[in-house]
Amino acid sequence: MRVVDLIRKKRDGAELSREEIEFLIEGVTRERIPDYQIAAWLMAVVWRGMSGAELEALTEAMLHSGLVLDWSDLPATKVDKHSTGGVGDKTSLVIGPVVAAAGPYVPMISGRGLGHTGGTLDKLESIPGFNVHLELLEFRRVLEKCRCSLIGQTPEIAPADKKLYALRDVTATVESPYLICASIMSKKMAEGIDALVLDVKTGGGAFMKKQSDAEYLAELMVEIGTRMGTKTVALITDMEQPLGRKVGNALEVEECIEILHGGGPEDLRELCDELSAWMFFLGNRTKTVGEGRKLAAEMITSGCARDTFREIIRQQGGDPRVVDDPGRLPRAKHTARITAPRSGYVSAIHCEDVGIASMMLGGGREKKEDSIDPGVGLVLEKKVGDKVEVDANLCTIHYNMDSRLPRAVELLSRSFEIGEKAPPSSPLVRKIIGATETQ
Amino acid sequence: MRVVDLIRKKRDGAELSREEIEFLIEGVTRERIPDYQIAAWLMAVVWRGMSGAELEALTEAMLHSGLVLDWSDLPATKVDKHSTGGVGDKTSLVIGPVVAAAGPYVPMISGRGLGHTGGTLDKLESIPGFNVHLELLEFRRVLEKCRCSLIGQTPEIAPADKKLYALRDVTATVESPYLICASIMSKKMAEGIDALVLDVKTGGGAFMKKQSDAEYLAELMVEIGTRMGTKTVALITDMEQPLGRKVGNALEVEECIEILHGGGPEDLRELCDELSAWMFFLGNRTKTVGEGRKLAAEMITSGCARDTFREIIRQQGGDPRVVDDPGRLPRAKHTARITAPRSGYVSAIHCEDVGIASMMLGGGREKKEDSIDPGVGLVLEKKVGDKVEVDANLCTIHYNMDSRLPRAVELLSRSFEIGEKAPPSSPLVRKIIGATETQ
Repeated sequence: MRVVDLIRKKRDGAELSREEIEFLIEGVTRERIPDYQIAAWLMAVVWRGMSGAELEALTEAMLHSGLVLDWSDLPATKVDKHSTGGVGDKTSLVIGPVVAAAGPYVPMISGRGLGHTGGTLDKLESIPGFNVHLELLEFRRVLEKCRCSLIGQTPEIAPADKKLYALRDVTATVESPYLICASIMSKKMAEGIDALVLDVKTGGGAFMKKQSDAEYLAELMVEIGTRMGTKTVALITDMEQPLGRKVGNALEVEECIEILHGGGPEDLRELCDELSAWMFFLGNRTKTVGEGRKLAAEMITSGCARDTFREIIRQQGGDPRVVDDPGRLPRAKHTARITAPRSGYVSAIHCEDVGIASMMLGGGREKKEDSIDPGVGLVLEKKVGDKVEVDANLCTIHYNMDSRLPRAVELLSRSFEIGEKAPPSSPLVRKIIGATETQ
Repeated sequence: MRVVDLIRKKRDGAELSREEIEFLIEGVTRERIPDYQIAAWLMAVVWRGMSGAELEALTEAMLHSGLVLDWSDLPATKVDKHSTGGVGDKTSLVIGPVVAAAGPYVPMISGRGLGHTGGTLDKLESIPGFNVHLELLEFRRVLEKCRCSLIGQTPEIAPADKKLYALRDVTATVESPYLICASIMSKKMAEGIDALVLDVKTGGGAFMKKQSDAEYLAELMVEIGTRMGTKTVALITDMEQPLGRKVGNALEVEECIEILHGGGPEDLRELCDELSAWMFFLGNRTKTVGEGRKLAAEMITSGCARDTFREIIRQQGGDPRVVDDPGRLPRAKHTARITAPRSGYVSAIHCEDVGIASMMLGGGREKKEDSIDPGVGLVLEKKVGDKVEVDANLCTIHYNMDSRLPRAVELLSRSFEIGEKAPPSSPLVRKIIGATETQ
């Protein structure tokens, strides 16, 4: 088999066989195929797409490029959630404890922030001492103890994805729904889960700006998950404005703690409940999604989810006292405000600019080698639909370095649009893909 | 400027600016851009194509990646011919001497055989002692002395093309008319010529099987040549059967010598006359193409072209006696025959199979590192339209290694189709692109 023939075949729009795809991915994993041939093949995939059979073969080949975890000895179903990423998207920190507190195991392997979006690992690391780099045996130990552990990518899981992603990043081949699907699903399938709930974001703050693109990706992922024997559902959710009110690492942890205490902003609470409910339902913990919602709420009002979160933090080396005293989280030294230029209603918040502002304050990385400043970020004092008076505070900026403030102020000033009337409210969950049960 | 942004731009179908293309090609030449990024960009070009402005910028950037020759002190126009390659396509060895003998300079830089097609350099090297690797100063010396010199690619000419071609070859990005055009035209423009005649082959033995593809490429090349100030014409010529009767390196030199002596097969003579005539016309040596044809014929009947060829061989270190005694050329030890299975007319000769048969005998390279066996090849005793009796000799195979014969016999046996009637004869020159003068 010659790589150049496989590139040509894909370039000409033909379908590669399972053996051909396995040959390519094995060549990537063992570094037998030069990067330039893989790069040309990736661009041909962006161009020509993939059939269902090709995508399944690719996902499986990437999955089996590394270890696949097996928790079948643990006495409950294993479920997980994956989000395609957004601004203020912090649900993992709530959902993990909520679902685990009610029985199912949640072996959650997460990523870093990407571009204007935050990452679960960066948020967790703002908790003093919290270690996301557990070896797999440690991961299992915490999972057994707490029913949930939250860690970062390990070198044993889907190494082909790691290599491919590094290449896609520098060859403009990231934005292919097929390659995105194989990347996400190979890593999630490696977690050894029975069910997966996908939160596919769409709107100005998401990677998929158009809902049709988000739906297409969701359909691919649901199809692949199902073909590979994992119950999979995707929720297409709104990312036209940031989720919740807080953006930035420690600030987002703080907001999750508010939720776990029964407070917090309504949109975040609603989405956490909804995703948890689907995890309960797919994981056979409840008979309906509606029962799942009730169970999620109970886990919060009873304090069980809070207890689980405290224990996860302790087991992963962090300071569990933050759960009851968020003042222990890092906090930026200074604050500044963005005020309303006129009275009216907030008609839009440009979500990507908000994410970039947080990144530029130090909450994310412009370059891979940048370090994160955990205390910085911003608090949206008003959200879409809120009535504002002139000079009212729209947003509080938490910052450390004066030099970083002006650009953030500029971005945030133009992020808020003030109109004459409140815009019609739009649903948070726009569509559910892959399930007949929707109640 | 970031390479990944330029790849993305082309991937999304947008037009790159001249500065962006120059940045890419300079990065290729100086090896500042990794191969995997160039490979992804090449595949995006195969996918999206190029605008006229982009193609001109690419060709110029590749041209100026190395030396551009300037013979403006030499007292006549400089003209050249380039063929896209075929089977038995040996016109350069006739045309160079014919045109140079009548006045214009012909600074011809040629290539090796590619796939099933032969290469001018491999043919020349079958002349004992002939050196195609002249330094540029030697090239000029021979050009001054003979008005024609035939050499191979030098490292100073269009180095970006050399690097890009090596990458295209292994990433299935050879077959883009834009990339082919830039590759050919950057090298030809570097020869410092005033006029260029392109022989764009089409049919079963050519790289462009479909005439529409050949015409598209021809139009691109004529447009780029003209934009860059070189008078350019393309002849779309037939490659449904091999050109002439002899295929193989020394055998093809022998057939060229027949032509220079006033003999040789009619189709080869006709095409050499036609291409020479267009070179005379574009190079302002004659007022019409018709006059050019007469001049070409005169150069042969007078013996002037023969004298020029003899002198070129002498100046480039070869044995000039081959021109009068082709028996001095290398010759294979054995011959074998392909005979007609029934009586009738030759209705088709599958040209690519003939080329592959010659390559497999040792006349070409299956892999780059293979060496050439100059004496092997084949002589077509019958061509399309010829009447044959059962058992008549269709083709004589000249071979050295017994082990290589069976595969050649197999290919050649199926190459000849015998029908009941002679097929209608088709013109050798199918179309002329880029000139109003066609007489």
